[in-house]
Amino acid sequence: MCEAAAYILKNGREELVLADVDVIEPDGDSLRLVNIFGEQKTLKANIISLNLLNHKVILVEKP
Amino acid sequence: MCEAAAYILKNGREELVLADVDVIEPDGDSLRLVNIFGEQKTLKANIISLNLLNHKVILVEKP
Repeated sequence: MCEAAAYILKNGREELVLADVDVIEPDGDSLRLVNIFGEQKTLKANIISLNLLNHKVILVEKP
Repeated sequence: MCEAAAYILKNGREELVLADVDVIEPDGDSLRLVNIFGEQKTLKANIISLNLLNHKVILVEKP
């Protein structure tokens, strides 16, 4: 499987937003994250980096 | 393996930027893409969506 954990960068620390994420897509001015279990989270953020071999996606809150 | 193909959205069409991408990270105001063969591309773009089960990352050029 090829899912990843999505973290948001806050005050220099990575906080887990959602594990096992499959899809991240724009939803208006927000991002919708969907994982392989169908769980969804929507937040005002941008994707800043990916490391797929480490299964990691880093987000930052929109200014 | 968990690499993905990175496409840039131009005039409503997806153009392949780099295949087998492992890492996408900020490089100044650009994005650096690195694939599993060590090939790199740097471009002024943002990541707008991911679909990891389909191994696809969509970028858009920065305005």
